[in-house]
Amino acid sequence: MERNELSRRFLEVRKKSEELCEPLETEDYVVQPVDDVSPPKWHIGHTSWFFERLILQEYESNFKLFHDQYHYIFNSYYESLGERVLRTLRGTLSRPTVSEVMEYRKSVTERMLKLLEKVDDDKWPDIETLTTLGINHEQQHQELFLMDIKYIYAANPLRPVYNKDFEEIPTNEPNDKRYLLFKGGQHQIGANGYGFAYDNEYPRHDRLIRDFALAKHPVTNGEYLELMNDGGYEDHRLWLSDGWDTINTQGWKHPLHWEKTKDGWMVMTLSGLKPVNPNEPVSHVSYYEASAFARWAGKRLPSEDEWEFAANQKGNSVEEGNFMDNRIYHPTGNGLPQDEDRLNSMMGDLWEWTLSAYLPYPGYEQAFGALGEYNGKFMSNQMVLRGGCCATPRDHIRPTYRNFFQCDKRWQFSGIRLAEDA
Amino acid sequence: MERNELSRRFLEVRKKSEELCEPLETEDYVVQPVDDVSPPKWHIGHTSWFFERLILQEYESNFKLFHDQYHYIFNSYYESLGERVLRTLRGTLSRPTVSEVMEYRKSVTERMLKLLEKVDDDKWPDIETLTTLGINHEQQHQELFLMDIKYIYAANPLRPVYNKDFEEIPTNEPNDKRYLLFKGGQHQIGANGYGFAYDNEYPRHDRLIRDFALAKHPVTNGEYLELMNDGGYEDHRLWLSDGWDTINTQGWKHPLHWEKTKDGWMVMTLSGLKPVNPNEPVSHVSYYEASAFARWAGKRLPSEDEWEFAANQKGNSVEEGNFMDNRIYHPTGNGLPQDEDRLNSMMGDLWEWTLSAYLPYPGYEQAFGALGEYNGKFMSNQMVLRGGCCATPRDHIRPTYRNFFQCDKRWQFSGIRLAEDA
Amino acid sequence: MERNELSRRFLEVRKKSEELCEPLETEDYVVQPVDDVSPPKWHIGHTSWFFERLILQEYESNFKLFHDQYHYIFNSYYESLGERVLRTLRGTLSRPTVSEVMEYRKSVTERMLKLLEKVDDDKWPDIETLTTLGINHEQQHQELFLMDIKYIYAANPLRPVYNKDFEEIPTNEPNDKRYLLFKGGQHQIGANGYGFAYDNEYPRHDRLIRDFALAKHPVTNGEYLELMNDGGYEDHRLWLSDGWDTINTQGWKHPLHWEKTKDGWMVMTLSGLKPVNPNEPVSHVSYYEASAFARWAGKRLPSEDEWEFAANQKGNSVEEGNFMDNRIYHPTGNGLPQDEDRLNSMMGDLWEWTLSAYLPYPGYEQAFGALGEYNGKFMSNQMVLRGGCCATPRDHIRPTYRNFFQCDKRWQFSGIRLAEDA
Amino acid sequence: MERNELSRRFLEVRKKSEELCEPLETEDYVVQPVDDVSPPKWHIGHTSWFFERLILQEYESNFKLFHDQYHYIFNSYYESLGERVLRTLRGTLSRPTVSEVMEYRKSVTERMLKLLEKVDDDKWPDIETLTTLGINHEQQHQELFLMDIKYIYAANPLRPVYNKDFEEIPTNEPNDKRYLLFKGGQHQIGANGYGFAYDNEYPRHDRLIRDFALAKHPVTNGEYLELMNDGGYEDHRLWLSDGWDTINTQGWKHPLHWEKTKDGWMVMTLSGLKPVNPNEPVSHVSYYEASAFARWAGKRLPSEDEWEFAANQKGNSVEEGNFMDNRIYHPTGNGLPQDEDRLNSMMGDLWEWTLSAYLPYPGYEQAFGALGEYNGKFMSNQMVLRGGCCATPRDHIRPTYRNFFQCDKRWQFSGIRLAEDA
Repeated sequence: MERNELSRRFLEVRKKSEELCEPLETEDYVVQPVDDVSPPKWHIGHTSWFFERLILQEYESNFKLFHDQYHYIFNSYYESLGERVLRTLRGTLSRPTVSEVMEYRKSVTERMLKLLEKVDDDKWPDIETLTTLGINHEQQHQELFLMDIKYIYAANPLRPVYNKDFEEIPTNEPNDKRYLLFKGGQHQIGANGYGFAYDNEYPRHDRLIRDFALAKHPVTNGEYLELMNDGGYEDHRLWLSDGWDTINTQGWKHPLHWEKTKDGWMVMTLSGLKPVNPNEPVSHVSYYEASAFARWAGKRLPSEDEWEFAANQKGNSVEEGNFMDNRIYHPTGNGLPQDEDRLNSMMGDLWEWTLSAYLPYPGYEQAFGALGEYNGKFMSNQMVLRGGCCATPRDHIRPTYRNFFQCDKRWQFSGIRLAEDA
Repeated sequence: MERNELSRRFLEVRKKSEELCEPLETEDYVVQPVDDVSPPKWHIGHTSWFFERLILQEYESNFKLFHDQYHYIFNSYYESLGERVLRTLRGTLSRPTVSEVMEYRKSVTERMLKLLEKVDDDKWPDIETLTTLGINHEQQHQELFLMDIKYIYAANPLRPVYNKDFEEIPTNEPNDKRYLLFKGGQHQIGANGYGFAYDNEYPRHDRLIRDFALAKHPVTNGEYLELMNDGGYEDHRLWLSDGWDTINTQGWKHPLHWEKTKDGWMVMTLSGLKPVNPNEPVSHVSYYEASAFARWAGKRLPSEDEWEFAANQKGNSVEEGNFMDNRIYHPTGNGLPQDEDRLNSMMGDLWEWTLSAYLPYPGYEQAFGALGEYNGKFMSNQMVLRGGCCATPRDHIRPTYRNFFQCDKRWQFSGIRLAEDA
Repeated sequence: MERNELSRRFLEVRKKSEELCEPLETEDYVVQPVDDVSPPKWHIGHTSWFFERLILQEYESNFKLFHDQYHYIFNSYYESLGERVLRTLRGTLSRPTVSEVMEYRKSVTERMLKLLEKVDDDKWPDIETLTTLGINHEQQHQELFLMDIKYIYAANPLRPVYNKDFEEIPTNEPNDKRYLLFKGGQHQIGANGYGFAYDNEYPRHDRLIRDFALAKHPVTNGEYLELMNDGGYEDHRLWLSDGWDTINTQGWKHPLHWEKTKDGWMVMTLSGLKPVNPNEPVSHVSYYEASAFARWAGKRLPSEDEWEFAANQKGNSVEEGNFMDNRIYHPTGNGLPQDEDRLNSMMGDLWEWTLSAYLPYPGYEQAFGALGEYNGKFMSNQMVLRGGCCATPRDHIRPTYRNFFQCDKRWQFSGIRLAEDA
Repeated sequence: MERNELSRRFLEVRKKSEELCEPLETEDYVVQPVDDVSPPKWHIGHTSWFFERLILQEYESNFKLFHDQYHYIFNSYYESLGERVLRTLRGTLSRPTVSEVMEYRKSVTERMLKLLEKVDDDKWPDIETLTTLGINHEQQHQELFLMDIKYIYAANPLRPVYNKDFEEIPTNEPNDKRYLLFKGGQHQIGANGYGFAYDNEYPRHDRLIRDFALAKHPVTNGEYLELMNDGGYEDHRLWLSDGWDTINTQGWKHPLHWEKTKDGWMVMTLSGLKPVNPNEPVSHVSYYEASAFARWAGKRLPSEDEWEFAANQKGNSVEEGNFMDNRIYHPTGNGLPQDEDRLNSMMGDLWEWTLSAYLPYPGYEQAFGALGEYNGKFMSNQMVLRGGCCATPRDHIRPTYRNFFQCDKRWQFSGIRLAEDA
């Protein structure tokens, strides 16, 4: 990428993160209601630390740490880069204040811009690679920021509203003739080397795919309510053993952010508490719940191979998808359903759980050093999700993108798309 | 008390709480680094809720809740008064914001002042009693506020400073001829009915006290360091069984807020990190540590009877003590030692652990209803501390005052005064 | 005590422990269903270890450990005496087998008898003191053995029966005119130096006792059922704060070992499961439950001073009490009630919770070394119980005896006797 | 299978379980030192319950439960079959006694034999299927029995010996020219329908396998010691993130059952404590340790496809393997190395961790009801291991057999075989 173009892109993403902060009160930046959620302040600092530590510290002449302790405070999980505040203690730190973090952020942005302009040509390839990674890293944190502030607001009895301009998307009944058939065969899976992709999307390789069918759109709230009303949370036969333990230990009886009121089922959204719309895709379900729903429905989840293959064949385009840029921050299924011969909402709306464990592709090489910690070290006890969601920046996603979460996580925007053997 | 006088006193205490907030940044109000510590914002709201719920809701005509949810958010432990946010989750709430809490506070203050002025004479005695309780309650929270903000700052790697104007008090070597002898006998203990006292200070009753001697001043940092250097934290023979478990499970090797640096032992104070002064009283020790120190020194702790009797006979006056009003927020021992025939620092500086479990005085009657929950329900598994500390409002304390903490608590300003049998 | 007499006594107690084992199957010796309960095998080994380690190892010529590892396996809590198996892991050890432990036991008994016969006169006083302590120690473990096997059997769905020869004691309605009045004054409390007593019963000292009244017999099952039926376990106003937490966290709704069946309330006893007899004293309640019952009844618990004073004045004799030697292993209240001017069941039947924390008597001196660990190190967070129970050896008890448990413990035979101010 | 043949086979397996009990003392049957380990007594009862509950209860005329409560006590994890003793509480039950369990066992064996002889022909196919499953189920528990008794003995400071007749197998240095090359392609994986196989081995299906190389024998103790001596347990770069957490939380520094003594590294075996032999395969490592070793060695683990394909091509035969029937109960690598063009120890010695998550094969159908709980419900958060081990019955294993454990488990006989891309 050209220098100017990369600078422009860098600045655009940096500004976007700041724009996402606008609805927040100072107090909102500080709290961590559960271990998984990070204080928004931490995201703002951490994405700056990433550029400072991985790029400026290595390439800036006369580099000087902005602040001695910020390295300790804003490192996330990079063992290679030294000691850090325990993840679970991020919400115990009132300092640095939001405005101090914003100053830090501003300084990093300015120094990065200068570096991108001035750095010697021989160092440019490295800078370009790392900056691109940093931009993508910051975009991931934009999504985390939205997931986390949603959780923070949902955990508050005052139920604050993040997105005050929300307008309801008109919706339709889900499709009865739901499944599109795909012919199997030997197909290539993984990133093709054009454009940015993470190391875990490589190497591109052949996979054997059997004939299968995939639902044209995700499972809706209305369909999920049928499972609930059918006693699905009490019927052990539907559940993986770990899932049955989880729902009983945690007392789960419905998706995260749902609550039953005298006016029926309500759901907390970034636009506040609103009635559950039966024609919207069901969101904030764990792998266990996705798996139980599929078993209840007599279907299964797709493998990540099937998902990627189908997305490339018949998926909606990235441009059509409901992403962060739409500023809805809630899945719509684009109103459900649409074109008869297309897969709706593959890209956007919700991350879709697949039946595939998050493992290295054949031939994957995990770097040593900090970059090797980005993806490779998480390859155990997680499942792959695909497609991006309403909180993902549109230019961050692609069909080969592999997101991953543990089976019991559901504070992300995650949903269910059913598959079946042909 | 006259109406005007009570109003004046009420307003003074309300203003004092707000004054204590001045050094805080907005972010400081929100965090709860450990379960024992409440977010400063919560203290500010809770002390207002106390007046709203116990007085305004009962006595104000046309009473209307300031906010539906604040009752749920700002109740502390009053089971009689309904559901509440779990204590351990106080730090998860970003809302209401600090300025919203301050508005709530302002409204309560104004409505209380109006009520104090206007309420019918027949209701005055109840109002007077409850308002006096509310004032004392708020004063307790002023001390908690200072303990808690100290913990919050100490837990932060940036080590913020609360009290920027601190001037060091000149100190002297502790006294060799340390013990004052007291002749025992049958003596009255407990509140005498003049002035305000809590229910747990009643009824005044006779106790049999044996001859004993009490140290003229508290144990100093220097003396405590001797225990540490003598391997006291590794010698099980000094410790209560529960204490030995605690220090090993928690990894305690020194008082709370101490840390060893390359420049020697440092201690976090409300005026920032500073070197441990050997001639200052040792603070932030648990009952277990106080007990182990006494055993190491071949002495014992005083009973609460002995302490109260001695304070009345030879203690420093409340006026001489180092209290919150001195704005030092750190024990000084008033420079240690002073008059030969007096007990230094009995009132003020540090709460002193006694050998007495926190139990009802003979004939104590615990009310049913909310007031009965103020003191009586805590009468198990706690020890009595006496004398107030450098964070206690001067006009809140008296020699009969019974404070209480569990044996393993040490985030309060707690110290050690030794006794021995005569 | 003469040598012959001490040997006789030693042998008698050793045999008694073995007799208590007779109803057990080999498997019963091994399990530890909760942390508080020790496997019976461990008691048998530990009481032998006590003699081997504290006496034989010091005084036997040509002493040789019976087995290298037994010291590690059978030490209980003596830090002075070295490393040991964690208390919570005692139930993980299948070896040594029961018969190996019995061989160890036999060897210790024989070597002790030889030592008691042969030891030089100059060492006799020490031997006598330690052997007497060892005998009393073993008697305490006889009671623990019975408490523990009761818990082990109650935790088993097959509900084994320990005591097959049980005959029901005929019972009467509790007494309406229940309270005996005691005139207060200055009285001596504590052991008087005649006969064996533990260090925690010393020194004898004066206490000031107010006029009070004490119930003639303990609270019965029928009376406790009234509390239960009155919603006592749901009414927070009755409970200490720690107690309210405990019953809610643990889900307690009734005394330990009770269960509701289609045939009404049943209770597990050492003679098997049987209907709750309303005229028997209620047993297996915690301090929290005792305290709540007293508050519900408008009474209070006695202090340990009051209890001891009253027991000396009007208590039943030790000979009249229901102790281990009666082989009933269940409280009877001796049929309830009896003589009008006497306190029934003070000695025997049930340990009675007092309002007194377990703290040192004024002037108490805790030894350094292993003997100092026997009682002194437990003087925090426990309450005193008095009087012995149906599992206590009769010649082990006396009115000055101070037993102690944490407020939430209830696997011991513990009951409630009410008091009130005169 | 013919009736006679099935009866013979059934009886043989039942007898084998009893033979495995012979070295045990009664006490050994009862304990559960950690949650994963079941008391041997429980295995003996559970394998009988399996036949009683799934076959006799359905097919025996005049069926009557042997004992009301045994169903509750001996169910393992079958939600379909009702309530059961919590897995973690199995070690708290002293009753039924070992001899009572043996009587239960005897009764089930006799009734099964009668049923196998007498049952109507129309029911025979079901009986045959279920009995075959029951036999295989019991064989799995024979291996669990050996793993568990090994853990029980290793946890005991007396270090009991299970197998007193052990003779050391002579060993050789591991092979330098270690890797055999395999040509990839499209190959069939899974059970072929001849002979018994579990549902999770079906359906047989095509997989695409790339060229790869596989080590001729497992990693040895000596090689693993190199990792340890190279600081492998301190180098985060080698570890999966979950693995790094695990080894730090658990304090792991070496394989399970190893300990460092003054005489060097020792390992607990079923033949007692013995020196670590550098030429034996390393055992009792977790997936995390297997993965870290592979990364340290610059290799990787094989996928389960690769493993199965290679085993079929060049693996040792089942007859050559070191299995339970050899009565060694310890991996030998058959002395390491052997034939140049063969894979040593594929079948037998140790379960080998693969890089494959335990997930359904494409087209797998999980039954509803109890049989569906056998394998299908465990398909999350586990990895596949292949090949059987020195505690597996020889006629229980086959190359398609999929065993599975969580990544942090290592009380099974699990080892490491390295692979690399060609």
